[in-house]
Amino acid sequence: MEHRYLENLPPAQAKSRYFAHLTAAGFAPTGETVAVQTACARTLQHAVYAHICAPHYNASAMDGVAVKASVTFGASERTPVTLTPDDYTVVDTGDPLPEGTDAVIMVEDLIDAADGCYEIIAAVHPWQNVRQVGEDLCMGDMIAPSGTVLTPALCGALLAGGVTKTEVLRAPVVGVIPTGDEIVAPTSDPKPGDIIEFNSTVFRGMLEGWGANVEVFPITPDKKDRIRAAVTEALDRCDIVLVSAGSSAGRDDYTADIIAELGTVLVHGIAIKPGKPAVLGEANGKPVVGLPGYPVSAIVIMDEIVRDLVYQSRGLATPAWNTVDAVLSKKLVSSLKYQEYVRVSLGKIGGVWSASPLSRGAGVISSFTKADGILVVPQNCEGYEAGDTVPVRLLRPLQELERTLIVTGSHDPLIDEVADLLRQSGAGFRVCSTHVGSMGAIRAVGSGLAHLGGIHLLDAATGEYNKSYVEKYFPNGGAVTVRGVGRVQGLMVKKGNPCGIGSFADVARVRYVNRQRGAGTRILCDYLLEQNGLTPQQIDGYDNEEFTHTAVAALIAAGNADTGLGILSAAKIYDLDFIPICMETYEFLVDEQYLDDPMVRAFFDVLRSDACKQRLQAMGGYLIEE
Amino acid sequence: MEHRYLENLPPAQAKSRYFAHLTAAGFAPTGETVAVQTACARTLQHAVYAHICAPHYNASAMDGVAVKASVTFGASERTPVTLTPDDYTVVDTGDPLPEGTDAVIMVEDLIDAADGCYEIIAAVHPWQNVRQVGEDLCMGDMIAPSGTVLTPALCGALLAGGVTKTEVLRAPVVGVIPTGDEIVAPTSDPKPGDIIEFNSTVFRGMLEGWGANVEVFPITPDKKDRIRAAVTEALDRCDIVLVSAGSSAGRDDYTADIIAELGTVLVHGIAIKPGKPAVLGEANGKPVVGLPGYPVSAIVIMDEIVRDLVYQSRGLATPAWNTVDAVLSKKLVSSLKYQEYVRVSLGKIGGVWSASPLSRGAGVISSFTKADGILVVPQNCEGYEAGDTVPVRLLRPLQELERTLIVTGSHDPLIDEVADLLRQSGAGFRVCSTHVGSMGAIRAVGSGLAHLGGIHLLDAATGEYNKSYVEKYFPNGGAVTVRGVGRVQGLMVKKGNPCGIGSFADVARVRYVNRQRGAGTRILCDYLLEQNGLTPQQIDGYDNEEFTHTAVAALIAAGNADTGLGILSAAKIYDLDFIPICMETYEFLVDEQYLDDPMVRAFFDVLRSDACKQRLQAMGGYLIEE
Repeated sequence: MEHRYLENLPPAQAKSRYFAHLTAAGFAPTGETVAVQTACARTLQHAVYAHICAPHYNASAMDGVAVKASVTFGASERTPVTLTPDDYTVVDTGDPLPEGTDAVIMVEDLIDAADGCYEIIAAVHPWQNVRQVGEDLCMGDMIAPSGTVLTPALCGALLAGGVTKTEVLRAPVVGVIPTGDEIVAPTSDPKPGDIIEFNSTVFRGMLEGWGANVEVFPITPDKKDRIRAAVTEALDRCDIVLVSAGSSAGRDDYTADIIAELGTVLVHGIAIKPGKPAVLGEANGKPVVGLPGYPVSAIVIMDEIVRDLVYQSRGLATPAWNTVDAVLSKKLVSSLKYQEYVRVSLGKIGGVWSASPLSRGAGVISSFTKADGILVVPQNCEGYEAGDTVPVRLLRPLQELERTLIVTGSHDPLIDEVADLLRQSGAGFRVCSTHVGSMGAIRAVGSGLAHLGGIHLLDAATGEYNKSYVEKYFPNGGAVTVRGVGRVQGLMVKKGNPCGIGSFADVARVRYVNRQRGAGTRILCDYLLEQNGLTPQQIDGYDNEEFTHTAVAALIAAGNADTGLGILSAAKIYDLDFIPICMETYEFLVDEQYLDDPMVRAFFDVLRSDACKQRLQAMGGYLIEE
Repeated sequence: MEHRYLENLPPAQAKSRYFAHLTAAGFAPTGETVAVQTACARTLQHAVYAHICAPHYNASAMDGVAVKASVTFGASERTPVTLTPDDYTVVDTGDPLPEGTDAVIMVEDLIDAADGCYEIIAAVHPWQNVRQVGEDLCMGDMIAPSGTVLTPALCGALLAGGVTKTEVLRAPVVGVIPTGDEIVAPTSDPKPGDIIEFNSTVFRGMLEGWGANVEVFPITPDKKDRIRAAVTEALDRCDIVLVSAGSSAGRDDYTADIIAELGTVLVHGIAIKPGKPAVLGEANGKPVVGLPGYPVSAIVIMDEIVRDLVYQSRGLATPAWNTVDAVLSKKLVSSLKYQEYVRVSLGKIGGVWSASPLSRGAGVISSFTKADGILVVPQNCEGYEAGDTVPVRLLRPLQELERTLIVTGSHDPLIDEVADLLRQSGAGFRVCSTHVGSMGAIRAVGSGLAHLGGIHLLDAATGEYNKSYVEKYFPNGGAVTVRGVGRVQGLMVKKGNPCGIGSFADVARVRYVNRQRGAGTRILCDYLLEQNGLTPQQIDGYDNEEFTHTAVAALIAAGNADTGLGILSAAKIYDLDFIPICMETYEFLVDEQYLDDPMVRAFFDVLRSDACKQRLQAMGGYLIEE
């Protein structure tokens, strides 16, 4: 089998090589002339000077009469001066001063006299109550230097200075070419094997956020000539070209070859994980980047390389990332070969930020949607210990993260429903929920990593839920449980129960799908096995572990397994039959000191609300206690 | 004269009254359905659940062959297993697993055997090298709750979950109606009395920055029925209506009356300065706001009231302002009657932020373009002392302000030119220059308020520039002067010198325009008066003070004065004649500790560059020294 090898260039080196070449090849900002009325947020290509003064004429600053100041000289209470109609002209605020006048007397200071005359008892000095020419801006003054991003007020100043059009830097047009034989346009009904093309939507959002215009090209199959034609067309119309997928060195990976034919490949393979198989190229003086097909890999290359390209072509410095220092919740091992991008969730509990690493799979887009930040582990660093303080790049505003209730532990969709009701209530905070199982909840609450932990832990000895576990793991107290719901656990099977499962003992003769170690449902499974005199070794699929009820249901629906333990609401979503096994007590573990936290209180208020009860009833399988 | 009085409602009270009424009147976010591909940055109206699993089929995670895992059981180096063509199917990464298979063997682990068979020496377990259904997302799982702002990754996740359309909150359409008889559309050639309409451009930029769509209506003259018709039309098409100007209680101020006729006026007059004459009204359940005509007043009402309207109608909490604590550079007196918005420039010198108040005129848009922040002085606070630490709302990113060279002192356009060349050089920092005169420069550098101060101070006793002043004000050293330029000072007169001015003595018989106290040019004027045996009292216009050379030139060009002292480049801009008086030494005063600051060094490098010399030559009147 043919196998070409990629480079593994340190990111800094890859970038400096690439950007030096691009600059030499003429990649630079270009300008266009736009009306100032629509120029806000654009960047000035050149310094702008006022064409006219503002005000551009001597303007009355008051309602009153315009006079020559000298006719008022000497006016006092004892020696009033009378103004005849020849001496004054009535003016409103903003009116130009008539020829020969140089001051305005306020209407309040005029005393009516006969024959249209006014008497005044105080003189005005020249230019009193007048906005003289140039008070705001003087013709020829520089209003803003080149490179200035136009604020609303600056646009106003330009117009006040008689500047109606201005040259600004063009926003680059970025062409995105999705490639791949199996790729299909977004649909809610894909056929098996169809891969929904969502990367271009992710790229569009990122690029527009950086100020670029985006043109997404049609999906192009894995044919070299077709992709080359698309790249050629994109080079005609766009300033930067991105080829999505096909950036590695496998059989159907054409991006590097095509760029080499049309221009120059500067880098093929960066010591970044995920994101290694990227191609950094140039053709016609324009950047052409080959992005990996896996969404998370592609996002990393977008952030590390393409973001700089967009800002450079806009003539702006790339903004620094917002970061926060956080305490790592668990040990993190990283390869010495790569600069690694670890998605983390962040929580601020008791004033301390903690960061918990999420899934590191390059294909798991949901790991990015759940992530609050990115921990960049440098190349040549083998990772961090739990408790180390690490800098985390923020993916959400800090303000939002500070108002986040952290709920962890056993998976139950009710937490998402409560989170949704909380958002609708306008409470002003969000819920971050992760699924680490009931035992994970005990650890997280105990170490101050979560406000709330969902638990349903069966004590095999007593048949009671939760109590003995809390006593064991919090021997000195400090944590309490708050009643949540009762819920039915059972065996999920395909519609019609084709394997004829009647009781838990039947799992020994079919393919089972299990939950992960530490999950309350796993503990229930082990308890039931023991009750039925079964051992894990007798269960086909005991090691097939999933993290949520819906994941178990999905695998049964797909035929990957015949049965698994879970809750009724998950079975209903997948139209599975459900064999009830037991009613269990799902509770929330809380550190006592957070019982009065407004977010915690709001969470329980919503949990007990009628709206929540209605949702749980619709989902099914819940016993709602008072 | 009729005069209606405005309320003077404390801002918090005005807002709570207004928003309570609007909520009761039904002002609330509304939704629309959009394609997920274009939904980035929009806010979800409802929670979104995955329609399908992702992956939605069991997908090969590798290139290799799909098998039923059980056929591989027992394979080892000593007991290899042979796979016949019936046992396997070739699959690429992403391919669906064929019916009856449940694992993939990587291509690297296959040993070629005869007749299309492969030998393997290790077993695979069920679901090895397979991305099982739902690995990323499970059907029925909530992808995001209502109120979530869609990130690029979330849009990707929605598409991966088979969601192609989604309901998001509508961005409000804000209608802006500019009113006024003298108002004209932007032009570079206005007639005397024409007031250029730039407020709507300022509003557009602000509103778009907050996520609104904007419709600017044609300029409407000060006729009540015309304005009412425009408001009625805007209420039909828009979600929020802003009427620009006419919000006070004068003769031609119709906004409040019109709103009262169409709906309800909740507030007329807020204890805010500038910005008091605002109208907060409601009609057809929609906010109608009357904005003051003065641009700075209007901007304050936009920030304080309209910003909240836009965010509320987008279903989002209004973002908090970014602030910084800064030391006030001089005493600030504020009225007890108003919450006052003072524009300040910010400088970070030696690690300390300082804030210097700028012009407080409501009509001076340039005070807003120069401002780096806003100091909000609460009602019932009479101001602050110099040296007080005050919170300042940022108008620019902190990053940008941290990379700002503060240049103050005597006005010379060369500073703007150097600033522009620095921006072009990509040095990555900006120059903030203010004009406080040469004596102001000495004070600012002495108190750590500026990096550089431009000075040209004539010692009447010695005829020398700057040296004796620096020795006097820095008796213990610590500051040095860096050579800038020689420049010609002279008398500016209208083209053709209509008053026949031959020498400085002639200023006694014409109208003069002077510079402010502390300006080097003012000191020169006083020196020349003394040399010519003249006193200030003999000079008509001695008290007419301006802050820049161009302002003096503008007034002479406008006929407000016959002559004034200034530099040649200003005279040239206004096509004035110039009678040279003397050559002076313009230098930069620097605190010794900043001589090696990279920004200071870059400034002087540019000042000495050929590009700068060329610009100075084009401006005229400069003697460029080495």
